[in-house]
Amino acid sequence: MTTLPRRGGLPENLISFKGCRAHIPPSTMLTENPRVVFAKRPGTGMPVAGEHIVFEPSHSIDLDQVPLNGGFLTKTLMLSPEPFMRERMRDLCIPSYSTHAVLGDPLVSFGLVVVMRSEKEGINPGDHLYGLTTWEAYTVQPYVQGRAKYDAREVPDYTFDVDALSLQMVPDPKGAFPWSRYFTVLGAPGLTAFCGFEGCADAKAGETIYVSSGASAVGIVVIQLAKAKGLKVIASAGADVKVEYMRSLGADVAFNYKTTPIAKVLQEHGPLDLYWDNVGGETVEIAIENSRLRARLIMCGSISEYTVAPEDRYGIKNTSMIFKKRLRIEGFLVPDLAPALAPRFYAEMPGLVAAGKVTAKEHITVGLENGPEALVAVLKAGGNEAAGKPVILVANE
Amino acid sequence: MTTLPRRGGLPENLISFKGCRAHIPPSTMLTENPRVVFAKRPGTGMPVAGEHIVFEPSHSIDLDQVPLNGGFLTKTLMLSPEPFMRERMRDLCIPSYSTHAVLGDPLVSFGLVVVMRSEKEGINPGDHLYGLTTWEAYTVQPYVQGRAKYDAREVPDYTFDVDALSLQMVPDPKGAFPWSRYFTVLGAPGLTAFCGFEGCADAKAGETIYVSSGASAVGIVVIQLAKAKGLKVIASAGADVKVEYMRSLGADVAFNYKTTPIAKVLQEHGPLDLYWDNVGGETVEIAIENSRLRARLIMCGSISEYTVAPEDRYGIKNTSMIFKKRLRIEGFLVPDLAPALAPRFYAEMPGLVAAGKVTAKEHITVGLENGPEALVAVLKAGGNEAAGKPVILVANE
Repeated sequence: MTTLPRRGGLPENLISFKGCRAHIPPSTMLTENPRVVFAKRPGTGMPVAGEHIVFEPSHSIDLDQVPLNGGFLTKTLMLSPEPFMRERMRDLCIPSYSTHAVLGDPLVSFGLVVVMRSEKEGINPGDHLYGLTTWEAYTVQPYVQGRAKYDAREVPDYTFDVDALSLQMVPDPKGAFPWSRYFTVLGAPGLTAFCGFEGCADAKAGETIYVSSGASAVGIVVIQLAKAKGLKVIASAGADVKVEYMRSLGADVAFNYKTTPIAKVLQEHGPLDLYWDNVGGETVEIAIENSRLRARLIMCGSISEYTVAPEDRYGIKNTSMIFKKRLRIEGFLVPDLAPALAPRFYAEMPGLVAAGKVTAKEHITVGLENGPEALVAVLKAGGNEAAGKPVILVANE
Repeated sequence: MTTLPRRGGLPENLISFKGCRAHIPPSTMLTENPRVVFAKRPGTGMPVAGEHIVFEPSHSIDLDQVPLNGGFLTKTLMLSPEPFMRERMRDLCIPSYSTHAVLGDPLVSFGLVVVMRSEKEGINPGDHLYGLTTWEAYTVQPYVQGRAKYDAREVPDYTFDVDALSLQMVPDPKGAFPWSRYFTVLGAPGLTAFCGFEGCADAKAGETIYVSSGASAVGIVVIQLAKAKGLKVIASAGADVKVEYMRSLGADVAFNYKTTPIAKVLQEHGPLDLYWDNVGGETVEIAIENSRLRARLIMCGSISEYTVAPEDRYGIKNTSMIFKKRLRIEGFLVPDLAPALAPRFYAEMPGLVAAGKVTAKEHITVGLENGPEALVAVLKAGGNEAAGKPVILVANE
């Protein structure tokens, strides 16, 4: 038996699957199974498509005979390029809230898949599932390649096992809304916004909230939840088309932070009772400066900092205002709040979306081969000039 | 009638009192009434005794005949130099949580006074009162000179009327503890520690807390409250004598931050579940770095920053750890929490102090003329080499 190379092109008659090396008869029908792999750590900079994140078309799979080992085989329909994927690409010595991405294996992100074959009870061909999956055309689930080693004793207590966010069945919207909506209001971003807003904000009608990255998948849901609760909403984004989009969602004040200084807008339309932080850095300082007594700052993400070395990050100098203004600054991750809030989210949100009371927009990029570029665009501040959450359409059903 | 000069030495036959100009017969007995006045704004630097804070011995008062206008006359026994007094000396254009100190008038701080004469019901000669008072030997209460103008419409919503913290009756300890204890565990510092710890910390037995400025009047109470609750306590100060003192109060790990790097200690004895911030700046960054999942940071003060221009303050670069570690950073001021917690404080703390279960130490400086230097020492990081809360003994009864 030939030794299976860990990376690179596979010999056609070998299937790689978690240490199992199966010899497949040459007559087997193989289907192309392209993937996008995490090829090289980008250090503190921006990952480069083709260098750090590489499309590999040369893999293949036998859809009829690949062993399922009690699991199930899925076809990837859509994938979601996400900021947290950059965090997983950090150097091994840097601790963070997520496990590391595995070098040489496919990227992992939220995705929508359809079941082709199954040995698992309760999972049937034709079922649609949404959750963490690998960036490849077909996957034996639960996926093994791309899965990070997780040993709670070896990581800080705030690091959680990203790969544990498993696929979950999602109902067929039957035309009430597009499947892609599972990547915005009805998926992880919607749940993130819901958990943070309902769990940390203490929002009251008449208060003023500022949402940075207001056109992001999380931001658009925060805007709509805040408007539904009677808040005045200030929202920023890095492209005029996104500003228009935020306005269409109900933002009272929407602006392009690349052309209008944030401080100027907040001085005019603040002070803030709430700040939803998706960006980190200097914007947090400006929000503190423009906060009212007992304002709450909800720390959800830090997109401005993921590709900046820790020592080069912006230093916030007005932390003494935290006690002077009696502010509360709170960070959260969905896995912390979801046990309490997800049931309400799944009970309420699909109905609101079907009724058109909460809306979203997805920006579809066709083809897994364009995945690396789509991910890099997400990581650039305002790099994606289109309004709508980027989604990669890998295949139709 | 001569026009009364607003500042400077008073003609001997005139008494200044809230716009009333009384002609006193030359036969009146005048008693010296020295004061310490706020003479000049120190900008962003350290105030200088004799320049910004000036002892003026030339004032006098007729103790028998000074009009009380329904109030009462007090003799000042002790005064407390406090960091918040520096904040009140800031330039007029800078907003903050406190009203400004009044130029040319006596300083205002917490003090212990005894009543000499009274026209106010419920206040009788011999009563002891603790609360905000002026830095002078004798005062007609409520004091008028030194009182800042306060109009809620003219200040930010987070600015409160410092002078509203009125004098309150305190019981005679009758030897159970010294009167000076009203400046530490039983006064504003004790109440501050109690409110923050009981209101914001969510402390649980077995958790680890780091207290900066652990030998300060607030710090020593936090250390003792934390130990009483079964926490592991790490505490720092800027002098070895203070380190010994913190250790004597039960701190498990006590160190001099001037000779031992904070980060090293926290790496060895952390991670932290709680951080009590009295200092601001870089220490906050180090505490965040060494925080555990869901740690709470209680922002109580910022002594390292009061004499540093905003643009020169240390910039905290690791704010993204707030969401990564799901931290909660909360600022508070006593007036916010006291309505809910002060009754419990006054019910529990005096008994604990009398029983020796909570202790404190005061460092007495004798003489109002030494007040300016004592205040400057409080504002210097670790500037006061003695353990114990600085208190100025103005007079014995």
